[in-house]
Amino acid sequence: MGNTFGEIFRITTFGESHGPAIGVVIDGCPAGLTLDLDFIRGQLSRRRPGQSRITTQRREDDDVRILSGVFEGTTTGTPIAMLIENQDQRSKDYSHIAESFRPSHADYTYQVKYGIRDYRGGGRSSARETAARVAAGAVAQLYLRTLGVSIHAYVSRVGDIVAPPYQTLDLSRTDENMVRCPHEETASQMIELIDKVRLDRDTIGGVVTCVIKDTPPGLGEPVFDKLHAQLGKAMLSINAVKGFEYGSGFAGVALRGSQHNDEFYKDGDRIRTRTNHSGGIQGGISNGEDIYFNVAFKPVATLMQDQRSVDKEGNEVIVSGKGRHDPCVVPRAVPIVEAMAALVLADFVLRAKGNKL
Amino acid sequence: MGNTFGEIFRITTFGESHGPAIGVVIDGCPAGLTLDLDFIRGQLSRRRPGQSRITTQRREDDDVRILSGVFEGTTTGTPIAMLIENQDQRSKDYSHIAESFRPSHADYTYQVKYGIRDYRGGGRSSARETAARVAAGAVAQLYLRTLGVSIHAYVSRVGDIVAPPYQTLDLSRTDENMVRCPHEETASQMIELIDKVRLDRDTIGGVVTCVIKDTPPGLGEPVFDKLHAQLGKAMLSINAVKGFEYGSGFAGVALRGSQHNDEFYKDGDRIRTRTNHSGGIQGGISNGEDIYFNVAFKPVATLMQDQRSVDKEGNEVIVSGKGRHDPCVVPRAVPIVEAMAALVLADFVLRAKGNKL
Amino acid sequence: MGNTFGEIFRITTFGESHGPAIGVVIDGCPAGLTLDLDFIRGQLSRRRPGQSRITTQRREDDDVRILSGVFEGTTTGTPIAMLIENQDQRSKDYSHIAESFRPSHADYTYQVKYGIRDYRGGGRSSARETAARVAAGAVAQLYLRTLGVSIHAYVSRVGDIVAPPYQTLDLSRTDENMVRCPHEETASQMIELIDKVRLDRDTIGGVVTCVIKDTPPGLGEPVFDKLHAQLGKAMLSINAVKGFEYGSGFAGVALRGSQHNDEFYKDGDRIRTRTNHSGGIQGGISNGEDIYFNVAFKPVATLMQDQRSVDKEGNEVIVSGKGRHDPCVVPRAVPIVEAMAALVLADFVLRAKGNKL
Amino acid sequence: MGNTFGEIFRITTFGESHGPAIGVVIDGCPAGLTLDLDFIRGQLSRRRPGQSRITTQRREDDDVRILSGVFEGTTTGTPIAMLIENQDQRSKDYSHIAESFRPSHADYTYQVKYGIRDYRGGGRSSARETAARVAAGAVAQLYLRTLGVSIHAYVSRVGDIVAPPYQTLDLSRTDENMVRCPHEETASQMIELIDKVRLDRDTIGGVVTCVIKDTPPGLGEPVFDKLHAQLGKAMLSINAVKGFEYGSGFAGVALRGSQHNDEFYKDGDRIRTRTNHSGGIQGGISNGEDIYFNVAFKPVATLMQDQRSVDKEGNEVIVSGKGRHDPCVVPRAVPIVEAMAALVLADFVLRAKGNKL
Repeated sequence: MGNTFGEIFRITTFGESHGPAIGVVIDGCPAGLTLDLDFIRGQLSRRRPGQSRITTQRREDDDVRILSGVFEGTTTGTPIAMLIENQDQRSKDYSHIAESFRPSHADYTYQVKYGIRDYRGGGRSSARETAARVAAGAVAQLYLRTLGVSIHAYVSRVGDIVAPPYQTLDLSRTDENMVRCPHEETASQMIELIDKVRLDRDTIGGVVTCVIKDTPPGLGEPVFDKLHAQLGKAMLSINAVKGFEYGSGFAGVALRGSQHNDEFYKDGDRIRTRTNHSGGIQGGISNGEDIYFNVAFKPVATLMQDQRSVDKEGNEVIVSGKGRHDPCVVPRAVPIVEAMAALVLADFVLRAKGNKL
Repeated sequence: MGNTFGEIFRITTFGESHGPAIGVVIDGCPAGLTLDLDFIRGQLSRRRPGQSRITTQRREDDDVRILSGVFEGTTTGTPIAMLIENQDQRSKDYSHIAESFRPSHADYTYQVKYGIRDYRGGGRSSARETAARVAAGAVAQLYLRTLGVSIHAYVSRVGDIVAPPYQTLDLSRTDENMVRCPHEETASQMIELIDKVRLDRDTIGGVVTCVIKDTPPGLGEPVFDKLHAQLGKAMLSINAVKGFEYGSGFAGVALRGSQHNDEFYKDGDRIRTRTNHSGGIQGGISNGEDIYFNVAFKPVATLMQDQRSVDKEGNEVIVSGKGRHDPCVVPRAVPIVEAMAALVLADFVLRAKGNKL
Repeated sequence: MGNTFGEIFRITTFGESHGPAIGVVIDGCPAGLTLDLDFIRGQLSRRRPGQSRITTQRREDDDVRILSGVFEGTTTGTPIAMLIENQDQRSKDYSHIAESFRPSHADYTYQVKYGIRDYRGGGRSSARETAARVAAGAVAQLYLRTLGVSIHAYVSRVGDIVAPPYQTLDLSRTDENMVRCPHEETASQMIELIDKVRLDRDTIGGVVTCVIKDTPPGLGEPVFDKLHAQLGKAMLSINAVKGFEYGSGFAGVALRGSQHNDEFYKDGDRIRTRTNHSGGIQGGISNGEDIYFNVAFKPVATLMQDQRSVDKEGNEVIVSGKGRHDPCVVPRAVPIVEAMAALVLADFVLRAKGNKL
Repeated sequence: MGNTFGEIFRITTFGESHGPAIGVVIDGCPAGLTLDLDFIRGQLSRRRPGQSRITTQRREDDDVRILSGVFEGTTTGTPIAMLIENQDQRSKDYSHIAESFRPSHADYTYQVKYGIRDYRGGGRSSARETAARVAAGAVAQLYLRTLGVSIHAYVSRVGDIVAPPYQTLDLSRTDENMVRCPHEETASQMIELIDKVRLDRDTIGGVVTCVIKDTPPGLGEPVFDKLHAQLGKAMLSINAVKGFEYGSGFAGVALRGSQHNDEFYKDGDRIRTRTNHSGGIQGGISNGEDIYFNVAFKPVATLMQDQRSVDKEGNEVIVSGKGRHDPCVVPRAVPIVEAMAALVLADFVLRAKGNKL
């Protein structure tokens, strides 16, 4: 029962990579929201495979169908179910992994945990599940827009190639190149690297940075459901994520308190901080400054190479590289990060409504 | 309502730094567990201030009283309430922050969120709250011991001083020095650095690494409650934490898939991996290998220096450094990290019981 | 966010009466269960309208499609999504209630709560939603069967016509008549009454009694999630239910303790009680005796008569009786009561797994 | 893990009858509420044993101590912990039940479920636990008062003696007699009956009716967390409760729809219903009319008589009547019913805040 996320704005996803369909039920979305289906479809197409030469050439047609919770284009306060049929349910490509465990995939752990697994395309552990998150996250983003909050994720690192800090970038330009890095020079280097890795039949990791602007202060519920703790959980729940840091993050460890502390000052009506090592979150609660964080993605585990492994009985086998896969997952992970961030924030906006008399 | 953690093994903490008491209620601890009070007290004393010259000289006497859920030394399956009275409830030291916001503390955000705050010693946002976690986590550790699981946290970095990888260390030696780094040479350098920082009336950050050994495979509940996602949330909910990474973490970003993948092999009866970049977790589920992760702590925000800030009305004020505080929080954070890790694992052990018919 | 039920075996339902589809996601069903689709369809057809002259003549074709969580006929431990498309989505029949509030329906309260409602056929408040519960409950029943638990609901009262106590009945005969009362003589009287009420273009209430046999002792989680408290909530959440009592129930109020107490005795290996006023539950926990309870259903609010009401602006209107509706809901409520009982028990079976070391 | 109640206004209780203390943690109470400690103590003293000759002569001194969440008399939004120390922890009175199971108590089921039990005074299953609910419920009542909602419970039945309908009563007079029935003549008969039962060393059941006035429309979260479903669960979770009905309840079963439906009309600015068989709740959501419901309590299981039973090994034993117990529990149950009702409503008020944009 780990397929539900959120307390008030709450989603439950379902579906396997090669089953009949995947989908999501959103419970707790406020009534009265105009549901912009084009925006939802737009986010889904940013996640979709096959959009450029540096992503997998596998095609998925993620057309989403809204089954409930919307009447004449407006949310009604009842659960919003969204369904994406799986077009490509051919099992034949996966016979080679029915009995074997692909290295650094979830084949072995699902088998041990449940005693059975739908091995086709990774089944439930496939990143295809994140399409449901993107659809739900787009609804959360539509809700947050009514409050003026905006969410901007982009690729800040591929392998060892790192973009400049977000404060120097124009985040509206993220989608201008296929790697989704808004710094053109860095983007070119990243694409070059991914091309090289792809030709090597290998894969490479990367980092997605996310910046959330104009968050109202007061979001986050200490002591356990701190805003950054819930963001961290959300990001770490995405396939292939290995790390999360916000504000100064791991680099802040090397600083002294006198360097790291963010001095308060008054700016017009608002109380603000001069620096923002806090990443917009203090004591687990938003303070109104930019929220920013980094999400580390490992290199994709599926390689176009032969790898040594074992089967269920422990016999040595060779797992061959087959199919069409991403050499680097981060360009397509951008909308997923945005979706999960939106889900966290929408939930906290609703939870904060009862904080005061 | 963010003060509860866990689904089955579930804790709820309460209490402010300078209120009458802090405490915790554990619901869902299995009946029949012998409650080793000495172990609980031992973990509390590892967290306690005043244990060495590199921690705060403020004294807290964290004597814990068990109010329920235990009969003749054994848990009964009913809620276990544990209470720690606050000895030192003098308010006088805190008058200087009643109206002002200390930089990089939670004073401002609590004020905005709730419209009122117990400003004495930080109130609910004080790290004193973690004593309740340590008490509850010790109970979780006692439960995990019955399954053979052991948890080993230690200080792996202070400022720029970094210990060698955990695989080269003897983790049983962590408590042999006051900085809780099991590598003696590194520990000496860390202590030297902390001493220097303290004399500068400043503070410094650090990293706690945690290694969990002999976890049964199958723990963790995809897709949202992945084992590492819940560990990440748990760690990020600890005061001053800015980042979390497990297995290869942020460094894994630079690797290629062919370097990063962990090859399976058969070792006697068990299926194991030759390398462990996965950090003992694949697809969000434990695979039986060592689980290891890093937790980044920022430098303590309370400095023994004057700092510029504002008061509630936005007037400029000087916040003076007063009281007795830690120059570096990581040595005392070690048992807190262990506690939160134990709470996560105990919960997942219980949740996994229904995975299969 | 009130569309989820259960802690471990947890369902989330969605869908409106005249939207594209209704459905349910089950999270937490153990892996390894053979999914008997015929049984699920059988329970759905027991709930379906149009099965006899004493139920509504409206036809619904509740064909269920399983979208996930099942691989080669067996549950995999991942979420099981089940979908029932709505065949009849014509809106024209409902124009008369778009602006008016039908008496004793949920039209007014939904309008006030959400500011918008899908008025077609009652939208989310329609009893059509219970089809999703029946599908999910059937899966829970399949799970409970593996433990030997069986659930038997039947109609024990229609209007003032009351069946003899369950202990005197053969509960395997419930489906032998269209009113689902296993006492033939009473059934005939009930059918006669319903026929009369129907010809009067009126409706009548009734009681469903449910008996659960061979429950293992130890189910139920005090102090709030007592077995009967959760059963009560489950039943009261069904459309048109006005009361719940278990064991001696309201009649027990008039008894003295010396009459009401159930004496323990040893029966072979088991400790049993000679009487069962406790209804198989003591202190909120099953004791192994029969669990039995009554569920009161009010007369259906939709009448084939004109009724006075108001519209959104408060103007007086006449709401006309239209469409095809049940004169008495209890015969079709029998599988719904069984479904909700099964969902409660399955959840408690799983929750009890961690009660002891 | 059944010791938590509520989603946003959420309580967790702990403690055994003869352990060191009982208590409760409230999480989610809005900040800014003036905490009227006298009101809390007043409600506790209405529940306290020994208040009159028709309640147990056992004395409990329920002085409550607030440990957190309140600063200078006002709630701060952090968890409110309240503690009631157990004064009378003598175990000697209970040696006779250490090995035996009292009929119709929870001794047997706790033993089976947990393998261990604190047998002293019933341990966790003792009604002493309800003191914690009353304390928490009083805080919820204080919150509801700020919204104008008022809750009035009273004894409407003892054995076969039944008070007139609530609409004819002056509910402000409930506490004018010791049985807490606001109809003087009925109260006298009830007291006479309880006196008789007490002299017979026996016990008798009763009904508490609760009326909630001036509830805002829109409370309750379909489809599972309907307002009456949650009220039902809340009431059924109270010790000795066997049944719950609201509005027309079980009697409504015999009515026809044309009699039962509540006609809408406009009354000034408000839309109201002429009758109120709905009990103020339609489709699981409050409509603004009076909410009213009945709660059935069985006769107290502890008798001042010898009873036959078995011990742990199944040997026949005689359980003797000892100690001081209530001949009828309902007079003291009145504040418990009010407390649980308040907890349900406070939670739904907070949950409703996010229903609309």
